[in-house]
Amino acid sequence: MGSVFGSKLHISIFGESHGPAIGVVVDGLPAGERIDLDELTRQMQRRAPGGDKTATPRKEADAPEILSGMLGGVTTGAPLCAVIRNTNTRSGDYGNIMSAPRPAHSDYAAHVRYGGFNDVRGGGHFSGRLTANIVFAGAVCRQILKRRGIDIAAHIYSIGSVNDAPFEPTGIPAELIERLNGAKFALVDESAEEKMRAAVSAVHEKGDSIGGVVECIVQGVPAGVGEPMFGGVENVIAAAVFGVPAVKGVEFGSGFAGSAMTGLQNNDEFYFDENGSVRTRTNNHGGALGGITSGMPILFRAAVKPTPSVSAEQKTVDLQTGENTTLSIKGRHDPCIVPRAVPVIESAAAVALMNLL
Amino acid sequence: MGSVFGSKLHISIFGESHGPAIGVVVDGLPAGERIDLDELTRQMQRRAPGGDKTATPRKEADAPEILSGMLGGVTTGAPLCAVIRNTNTRSGDYGNIMSAPRPAHSDYAAHVRYGGFNDVRGGGHFSGRLTANIVFAGAVCRQILKRRGIDIAAHIYSIGSVNDAPFEPTGIPAELIERLNGAKFALVDESAEEKMRAAVSAVHEKGDSIGGVVECIVQGVPAGVGEPMFGGVENVIAAAVFGVPAVKGVEFGSGFAGSAMTGLQNNDEFYFDENGSVRTRTNNHGGALGGITSGMPILFRAAVKPTPSVSAEQKTVDLQTGENTTLSIKGRHDPCIVPRAVPVIESAAAVALMNLL
Amino acid sequence: MGSVFGSKLHISIFGESHGPAIGVVVDGLPAGERIDLDELTRQMQRRAPGGDKTATPRKEADAPEILSGMLGGVTTGAPLCAVIRNTNTRSGDYGNIMSAPRPAHSDYAAHVRYGGFNDVRGGGHFSGRLTANIVFAGAVCRQILKRRGIDIAAHIYSIGSVNDAPFEPTGIPAELIERLNGAKFALVDESAEEKMRAAVSAVHEKGDSIGGVVECIVQGVPAGVGEPMFGGVENVIAAAVFGVPAVKGVEFGSGFAGSAMTGLQNNDEFYFDENGSVRTRTNNHGGALGGITSGMPILFRAAVKPTPSVSAEQKTVDLQTGENTTLSIKGRHDPCIVPRAVPVIESAAAVALMNLL
Amino acid sequence: MGSVFGSKLHISIFGESHGPAIGVVVDGLPAGERIDLDELTRQMQRRAPGGDKTATPRKEADAPEILSGMLGGVTTGAPLCAVIRNTNTRSGDYGNIMSAPRPAHSDYAAHVRYGGFNDVRGGGHFSGRLTANIVFAGAVCRQILKRRGIDIAAHIYSIGSVNDAPFEPTGIPAELIERLNGAKFALVDESAEEKMRAAVSAVHEKGDSIGGVVECIVQGVPAGVGEPMFGGVENVIAAAVFGVPAVKGVEFGSGFAGSAMTGLQNNDEFYFDENGSVRTRTNNHGGALGGITSGMPILFRAAVKPTPSVSAEQKTVDLQTGENTTLSIKGRHDPCIVPRAVPVIESAAAVALMNLL
Repeated sequence: MGSVFGSKLHISIFGESHGPAIGVVVDGLPAGERIDLDELTRQMQRRAPGGDKTATPRKEADAPEILSGMLGGVTTGAPLCAVIRNTNTRSGDYGNIMSAPRPAHSDYAAHVRYGGFNDVRGGGHFSGRLTANIVFAGAVCRQILKRRGIDIAAHIYSIGSVNDAPFEPTGIPAELIERLNGAKFALVDESAEEKMRAAVSAVHEKGDSIGGVVECIVQGVPAGVGEPMFGGVENVIAAAVFGVPAVKGVEFGSGFAGSAMTGLQNNDEFYFDENGSVRTRTNNHGGALGGITSGMPILFRAAVKPTPSVSAEQKTVDLQTGENTTLSIKGRHDPCIVPRAVPVIESAAAVALMNLL
Repeated sequence: MGSVFGSKLHISIFGESHGPAIGVVVDGLPAGERIDLDELTRQMQRRAPGGDKTATPRKEADAPEILSGMLGGVTTGAPLCAVIRNTNTRSGDYGNIMSAPRPAHSDYAAHVRYGGFNDVRGGGHFSGRLTANIVFAGAVCRQILKRRGIDIAAHIYSIGSVNDAPFEPTGIPAELIERLNGAKFALVDESAEEKMRAAVSAVHEKGDSIGGVVECIVQGVPAGVGEPMFGGVENVIAAAVFGVPAVKGVEFGSGFAGSAMTGLQNNDEFYFDENGSVRTRTNNHGGALGGITSGMPILFRAAVKPTPSVSAEQKTVDLQTGENTTLSIKGRHDPCIVPRAVPVIESAAAVALMNLL
Repeated sequence: MGSVFGSKLHISIFGESHGPAIGVVVDGLPAGERIDLDELTRQMQRRAPGGDKTATPRKEADAPEILSGMLGGVTTGAPLCAVIRNTNTRSGDYGNIMSAPRPAHSDYAAHVRYGGFNDVRGGGHFSGRLTANIVFAGAVCRQILKRRGIDIAAHIYSIGSVNDAPFEPTGIPAELIERLNGAKFALVDESAEEKMRAAVSAVHEKGDSIGGVVECIVQGVPAGVGEPMFGGVENVIAAAVFGVPAVKGVEFGSGFAGSAMTGLQNNDEFYFDENGSVRTRTNNHGGALGGITSGMPILFRAAVKPTPSVSAEQKTVDLQTGENTTLSIKGRHDPCIVPRAVPVIESAAAVALMNLL
Repeated sequence: MGSVFGSKLHISIFGESHGPAIGVVVDGLPAGERIDLDELTRQMQRRAPGGDKTATPRKEADAPEILSGMLGGVTTGAPLCAVIRNTNTRSGDYGNIMSAPRPAHSDYAAHVRYGGFNDVRGGGHFSGRLTANIVFAGAVCRQILKRRGIDIAAHIYSIGSVNDAPFEPTGIPAELIERLNGAKFALVDESAEEKMRAAVSAVHEKGDSIGGVVECIVQGVPAGVGEPMFGGVENVIAAAVFGVPAVKGVEFGSGFAGSAMTGLQNNDEFYFDENGSVRTRTNNHGGALGGITSGMPILFRAAVKPTPSVSAEQKTVDLQTGENTTLSIKGRHDPCIVPRAVPVIESAAAVALMNLL
């Protein structure tokens, strides 16, 4: 029962990579919210595979069909369900035998968990394809949040050892938010793209892959949101963001770097701004103190591990024979999923935010 | 409603620093589990303030009183409640006016969240003292987990820029677990203690403080535990560990460092060990793949920010006057809470594990 | 966020009567369970409108499509989603203006709750059609429960003032369970059917409707299942069964009648049966004591109110004009939904049981 | 994990009849609510044993001690914990062997559930004494609800076959609410008291007991509160009220009687009242339609089974010897718990309401 999230806005995700369809039910949306389906599609295209440099839109067949919860483009308050068909399924083809689990994939763990009955084709329910559902739910939530003055943006903080310029922790301009929200390769400093692509190409040529970090900012959340202890902003966001496959770390504000600082370096002093609002000069706390928002932007970074699927030969086990073996993963795999992870992590944050507000 | 955690083993924490008492209700414990109260007290003393070099035990008055759920030292299956009295309370003294919120503390955020009605004395419900409840709950859980072959240990991975030797990710010896489980200043390489204490003293003399990182390992969890997506091992542990005040980051396995690696570097190859068990040669995945345990140790690190309370003067606001002001925090404060955070983080992991199993 | 249920087996229901489709996601099913789709269809046909005397199968178009969670007829352990298309929808026809709320329907309450944005066509998300999802989820669960020795059966306890023979509270024979599980007009004493149909016809001719009571038994649940207080068998079953529209009362064992008895009349004495098992001679407690099963059958009754839609003229308000008005509900409506409620209530019980076990 | 309730306002109940103390943690209360402790004590005295005709206040030692969540009589927003000491405990006396389970008590079910480790003394966690916690939580909630215009009142609808006058379903006067809220033997028609007491005395003389029905009304809840399906008003109230030991049935509005009516009899017609508010002429729906409030009073009845503890000899089993045996329950037991159940059920309703609003 792991594919559900939320106590106020609730999502329930379903689907397997090679089954008939994937989808999501979003329960708890406010009624009367107009949803711009073009904007929603745009967000889903940011995550969609292919076409990242060209203008080729994703195939229409891959578009979500909304089955409920919307009437005339407006939410009804009833659960919203969207379904995305899988087009690569072949009925009758149940080649479901797990032989050699792919290193760093869920194959082996899921095999044990489900006694070998899980759908292994394409990773089944663990496929990265399932993140399309998170983007769908998040894209709906983001439109509602925006109407309440809350913006979410993320960028490729790093790929391998190549860094983008970091977000200004105390806030980023509206123009940057808008640009990033439309980007497929989201960078603060667009000049980093070339180096990042070069880094990806370099590993790709060797049949290898590479990871990176996504940085995300949420602006416009008023002070006083969240709960102490386990209901805090960090807890809820982390619980959502660790639901994105390949995320292995989450840090807020100065995070791990901050833990090497002194108090005087890391503490953010308060001041009254020109409007009489309480703000902090710096934002090492990442927008939450004691689990509750301070009114400063919520800022976090998520570590995305290198794509586990690499074409180079790897050692693994053969669960059928009980012998050690080797494996070469066929097919085209993203040598770096970090760019596509950007809208997924923004969306996970959006779903988390809806649960906090 | 943030001070509750868990869907299988449920904890509900209460108390304010200067109120009559703090405590915790633990609901969902199996019946018939003998709890060694001496061992439980030992764990609580590891967190307790003072006496870290001396053998002075904590004051008896600070011991938890068990109100329910245990009979003759054995769990009854009914909710277990423990209460720890606060001894520093003065009735009638409601000096509850928030004036100058301390930088990097929850003061301001809580003031807004609770409309100024929260108990501000000593940080109220946000006080680090509340972590005694987590240690209590965790100490109970750890005894039950140990009986099922599961051990939890943590150490001071770093203070400032001083590092301990890291855990061997594929597993640590039983002797080390035992030593760490009894330590107040838990280190793999005990020779690091001197340098760490020197680093703490150096900032302390300047009225400053310092942060660090705690590394935690959970050994003995079989493969196949956990759920996909939001019910994964990482999600549940992170949701618990971010409930520990001052934690600003959590990473599993190779974590943020792993995101800079290539797939071939980061992927952990599988092999059959001499007993025919599937294992991985390395443990960059930190024990969970797709949210589900692989049978390898669960390994994570938590970033602990520097103690926000420093005696040096800091700038802040005066919420009464609406003017910017300065603040010097009086009283004795830990210049580094990392050593005391070790048993708290182990305990949060223990509570999380009970929810996963 | 009301259309979700369960903390172990979780269901999320979606759909509106005149939207594109209705459906349900069932998360938390064990992997490796073969599901007999013919039997599943049979259960859904018991609830389906029409054909109650004839053998006419329901229209194929109304069959659920399983989108995930099953492979080769066996559960994979991933969330199971089923979708049932609505065939009576007309795109572009958003005649969504609530004018005169139907008495005893959700129309007015939902209008206020959703600010007039809810889909009112056919009752929207509140339509009885949505119970097809409960039957789907329940039919899956019942097959799994049956494999563990647990049977669920219900019958029409009464329609208006016409009663069926009640269940023998201490248990009913396997043959009766089997017969009831296949029945569209489920009765212990089939001779009651004629009188019940006569009672329905009598009100139907007057443009009126009639209610009744459904009695449900769950056999084979071992002693010791359930939790004290709010996690008890009664709480969980009631929370599920009150999710069936038109249910206005739930009682266990001797229920309301038992409250008029004395202790010596109502108390069920324990004895050892011939196998040395503890049983009770009577079953006024309905299978649960202190929220926990006793090993006796779980027995409950649900009061089903008369169908609110009647063709006779009724007084109501006009929300557009602000005037009192009258209303005659057009269309064919079941004059009595009790027979169709039988499989729905069995299914709600099945979902509840999966959450208790 | 059954002794917790609520997703917005959360209560966690602990304690065993003969353990050191019982208590409750209430998490999620709004901050800044003044709680009248005298009124709170008054509510707890309504449930307390003894003194029902005399003015003898309950023993001071039995009063709740508030450990957290309140400062100067005002809620702080942090979890509120109250503890009530048990004064009849003897340390070292673990006479915890279940021999002959009392008919209609939880003894046997709990013995199986907890493998014999549960505290059996006085019923342990299943003791009616634990309902003091519900009354405490409810008494706090009721003061907050009252400030928002919501009143809750209940009365002894019946004891055995003796009935009080029922509530007027469309609403009761403020004076009656006030009188009932202070009553220990709460009746609409106080002339019923004599007959009820006679009925109780009659069974008591025979060593027997008697049950009854409690009727409860909640006035002032606006239309539009609640959720469809499993999040409905009925579901949430039933899930709370079935948490009161001895409750075996819950019905709303016309309930079971309504299921024998026709639609035209049971449907409540809408009209605009003199203020232009939508109301219904009758209230057979009990204030909720489709799970959502209509603006009419919420009206429900709970069936309370006869006290299982009777002094007359009963047959049961001896779990030690494996033989059938007889049992005579010693000690003073309420021959009728219905009067004391009144404030408990009001309180369960109050907790449920806080979760709905």
